[in-house]
Amino acid sequence: MKTRIIAGCCMLPLLLVIYFGGWVLWAFDLVIGIMAVYEFYRGFREMDIKPSLPIGIGGAVLLYALNLVACGGRLGDELDYKWLIVWFFACVIVSLLYLFRIEERKLEDGMVTLTGLFYCVFFSFHITLIDQMTDYSILIWLVFITAFGTDVCAYFAGVTLGKHKLCPKISPKKSIEGSVGGILGSTVLSIVFACIFAEELLVHCIVIGVLGGVISQFGDLTASIFKRKMGIKDYGKLIPGHGGIMDRFDSVLFTGPMVFYYILLVLE
Amino acid sequence: MKTRIIAGCCMLPLLLVIYFGGWVLWAFDLVIGIMAVYEFYRGFREMDIKPSLPIGIGGAVLLYALNLVACGGRLGDELDYKWLIVWFFACVIVSLLYLFRIEERKLEDGMVTLTGLFYCVFFSFHITLIDQMTDYSILIWLVFITAFGTDVCAYFAGVTLGKHKLCPKISPKKSIEGSVGGILGSTVLSIVFACIFAEELLVHCIVIGVLGGVISQFGDLTASIFKRKMGIKDYGKLIPGHGGIMDRFDSVLFTGPMVFYYILLVLE
Repeated sequence: MKTRIIAGCCMLPLLLVIYFGGWVLWAFDLVIGIMAVYEFYRGFREMDIKPSLPIGIGGAVLLYALNLVACGGRLGDELDYKWLIVWFFACVIVSLLYLFRIEERKLEDGMVTLTGLFYCVFFSFHITLIDQMTDYSILIWLVFITAFGTDVCAYFAGVTLGKHKLCPKISPKKSIEGSVGGILGSTVLSIVFACIFAEELLVHCIVIGVLGGVISQFGDLTASIFKRKMGIKDYGKLIPGHGGIMDRFDSVLFTGPMVFYYILLVLE
Repeated sequence: MKTRIIAGCCMLPLLLVIYFGGWVLWAFDLVIGIMAVYEFYRGFREMDIKPSLPIGIGGAVLLYALNLVACGGRLGDELDYKWLIVWFFACVIVSLLYLFRIEERKLEDGMVTLTGLFYCVFFSFHITLIDQMTDYSILIWLVFITAFGTDVCAYFAGVTLGKHKLCPKISPKKSIEGSVGGILGSTVLSIVFACIFAEELLVHCIVIGVLGGVISQFGDLTASIFKRKMGIKDYGKLIPGHGGIMDRFDSVLFTGPMVFYYILLVLE
């Protein structure tokens, strides 16, 4: 409990990263993507599946490099999505070619390589994409407010009120009361954010708050499923009491795309 | 041998489909994508991996539907790539959510679902994308000329001259002589095509011919790797002497994207 709070404070530099945006956020996001895919691949060791870390890291670097090319080196401009398609294709092809050493490699090795590129690298990349949506980049805060807000509120609501199990097979400690508390907390925090920083977007912030409360729990549960199947408790030991990057950012992996597609499809 | 030639003639309707393009090609390509993903998923039965066919087919239908939305129902217009990103994200998310029935499903079930969506559906979709590139849609012919040209020329060169094995572990019958013959055949056929139909693109056709000769063999070998690991000889029995759609179109899955990205990155 105490370690959790202390470690939570270690996340404060994140505030600065989001505040500055641009190059700082771009570089931070790239590092998160690489660490996430590294932890994800490592988790499969126990299952005797060997994804390619060079492809994972190379894919992350290529994605962020293409992003620079696409906006002509000036971060903050809108992305030309053409490059993303090229990146997608490259990831699939390289993961398939990885199987060509047919005697050394299982099909799973290639498929986990591919899944990691999309689940860890592509999903976390949406944070950079939001930062580059000039008109609405302020909403990037909601990625983290909904993810961490849900997490903290669900934890306290669950500890104090939790009675009915949510999905004992995936995550035995979670309760329905905690889940509802998480969604409420995410919504209230998003409203507070809107009232102070983005009053004209209040309605959208409420919707994002509710969606974020739900979706961040799906992100959490998805990470739990992988960990259960891998037979590990945590992805890593990077942050004391919080596990690895993937343990801390599992919800952000889902709320990032949610905010991005909300802006792309509803607001733009 | 005789069956092969007869079955080859069954492919003639394909000429009409490419000639008409537009809606005809769009619908044909969708059907190919669905059949390919169906055969691909079925191949994993022997490995006791159960990907989700509803997600595979639903993903294919969604992709082609989004394509219609993106060009406002008027096929032939250029695509707004934004929709492709949304589709990519949707595929990853749904494949992950498929794992939520944690007791019934293995991680492999979700990962094969995802791989099939990208390898079978997304790759074959590039044919429709080329058809929609108004200025260069004529080059769609090279997708098939290089794929089938390589296949046929490699076969005859291999039968008559083949001595040195190409990659016995993946595909024991292939020879280096056949492989070179395939590349030469693909190049010559592409030159003939350019001289008759697209003289102003002759240089590009030569490059595409060489690349197509190489890449279509990678497509062929990729399909062989999957079949070997799955423990099957053919993906299906649809076309007599030619196996299933995936056996016949394995090279097209690779030459389609090659031609598309060549146009996108070099010609446009």
